[in-house]
Amino acid sequence: MLRLYLTLVLVLGASLGAAFPTDKPKKSCSLSKYRFLVPHELKAVQKMKEQFEEIMLLSDRKCNTRLFHRKWKIAELSVPDRVMLVEAELDLTTTVLELPAAPRFAETRQEPLTFLTQAREDLRACMATESPSHQPSGKLRHWLQKLQMAKETETSGCLEASAILHLFQVLNDLRCAALRQQCT
Amino acid sequence: MLRLYLTLVLVLGASLGAAFPTDKPKKSCSLSKYRFLVPHELKAVQKMKEQFEEIMLLSDRKCNTRLFHRKWKIAELSVPDRVMLVEAELDLTTTVLELPAAPRFAETRQEPLTFLTQAREDLRACMATESPSHQPSGKLRHWLQKLQMAKETETSGCLEASAILHLFQVLNDLRCAALRQQCT
Repeated sequence: MLRLYLTLVLVLGASLGAAFPTDKPKKSCSLSKYRFLVPHELKAVQKMKEQFEEIMLLSDRKCNTRLFHRKWKIAELSVPDRVMLVEAELDLTTTVLELPAAPRFAETRQEPLTFLTQAREDLRACMATESPSHQPSGKLRHWLQKLQMAKETETSGCLEASAILHLFQVLNDLRCAALRQQCT
Repeated sequence: MLRLYLTLVLVLGASLGAAFPTDKPKKSCSLSKYRFLVPHELKAVQKMKEQFEEIMLLSDRKCNTRLFHRKWKIAELSVPDRVMLVEAELDLTTTVLELPAAPRFAETRQEPLTFLTQAREDLRACMATESPSHQPSGKLRHWLQKLQMAKETETSGCLEASAILHLFQVLNDLRCAALRQQCT
């Protein structure tokens, strides 16, 4: 009887172990939630952008280059290229949204920052699971190099203003990456 | 017979003169068309703002003051005060939209400029017909003085950026002025 009980416990334990693995779950790729951005999130981003526009002119924001400028459309890129592009855009965006700020703006940016950080993590998980050894195309590589150079040479005032002023472009890019082949 | 003919011509002429006065018609006050702004106009303004945000960081835009900042709401002002406020805002806005610009931006701003210039003319006509000798309240006078000082001391780069970044605030103010007592 005791043996039967132990066997049952072991079998049940093994089944539960399979259903609820105790080791770290393998990350999966799921961007479908970014296909249609929630009005609530868009409103929080819009509020933050407006508040930033109120104060941005009081600091020096001059840039030597147009960081987010490109002559091609994101839909021209392959799906892994798109994911890589948006990940780089969000890397910069989340970094500047963590810069020291006045208390009022620091509070307002919290919700968009949480959302954008999560989106960046989801994009990273997608790259890791779906295209771990993806090499960017020529046009994306050129753009990434330009962005990297700007991050090293432009002032933080310029980087912050560029990223915040282009937030809706980045959100559109995120949506395009999430739509995969349906973004044309 | 000739006398009768001349009399008829004179009488007829006088009647036609009354129906179609040849002197300049007296301007009247009508702001009702600004109560609900046409989506087409809003879209043109949004397009212009976005295009400006693309290029604005390439020039020095630093300001010493926040030109459009105020601690009170427009609805707290009397109706003639509101008209006077929006007229001053549109004076600055239309002036900066006439500054030299790159051909692409010069073309994009044409439609908003025409609309905003017309709105300013309509506000002026209202002041002239309804409140020709209106004196601004203390809080408005203080704000107008601050704006005038900024126009004299800030750079054109700052003035242009401030006005364009605050265009939707100005349009909201215009709507509030047009709504008269209904804007609360």
